Amino acid sequence: MTTDFELDQRLKSDCYVLSDTGEFITLLMNNSLVPWFILVPKTDKTELYQLEVEMQHKCFDQINNLSKFISREYNHDKLNVAAIGNIVKQLHIHVVGRFESDPYWPGVVWGNDQKKEYTNGQFERLKKKYLLYNSA
Amino acid sequence: MTTDFELDQRLKSDCYVLSDTGEFITLLMNNSLVPWFILVPKTDKTELYQLEVEMQHKCFDQINNLSKFISREYNHDKLNVAAIGNIVKQLHIHVVGRFESDPYWPGVVWGNDQKKEYTNGQFERLKKKYLLYNSA
Repeated sequence: MTTDFELDQRLKSDCYVLSDTGEFITLLMNNSLVPWFILVPKTDKTELYQLEVEMQHKCFDQINNLSKFISREYNHDKLNVAAIGNIVKQLHIHVVGRFESDPYWPGVVWGNDQKKEYTNGQFERLKKKYLLYNSA
Repeated sequence: MTTDFELDQRLKSDCYVLSDTGEFITLLMNNSLVPWFILVPKTDKTELYQLEVEMQHKCFDQINNLSKFISREYNHDKLNVAAIGNIVKQLHIHVVGRFESDPYWPGVVWGNDQKKEYTNGQFERLKKKYLLYNSA
């Protein structure tokens, strides 16, 4: 873990920050067409297998947490969980709720131009729900 | 874990089986354009978060193992690790070595028609290396 961790510029411009704790930043991709969350472990490693086992387990806990939040808030058909990083090298894990009716289905969400930004109100309501969920 | 686990037909037709142990089947996607491995935990759950914590940790161990094998055998630029499952519902995790020179870069590997099957000889050599690596 780096103490002077700096979120990647591309992630910063594409996403809202939902939470920033000691070891993780949780982001919301600014695209309301799918519930698309991104978990950023504060590390300078770029691959999951390079993390210490304890941090890997913490990542899984966070993925579980996001998955359960998505399951509770959305009636999704499938979750997509992925660490890709071909473009943004900083390690980040996508956790995306997918619907058979979403515009990307059955394809993946990456590499599509079509998107729809959240309104401020939509984002604020979602963030509130997320923080409430995590304080419970 | 189901004792009468049956590999999904689509995975069966698209992939070679590298190993079949008590809890996991490891597959090689029959596409030599990228080193594309698939880990199938023997479960009827379809989402990672639904697995018991112990099984989640075992999944991470297997992902680590595949990642290290790919790192040893290929001089890849990035690993892509993903559980998607929009088409094949049976839980399976892709672990793919990516190169800046591969035909899909910087896009993802899913949803592309371009592929190149392994020859029998290529597959047999790769399987031998994989089994040797796992017996060490």
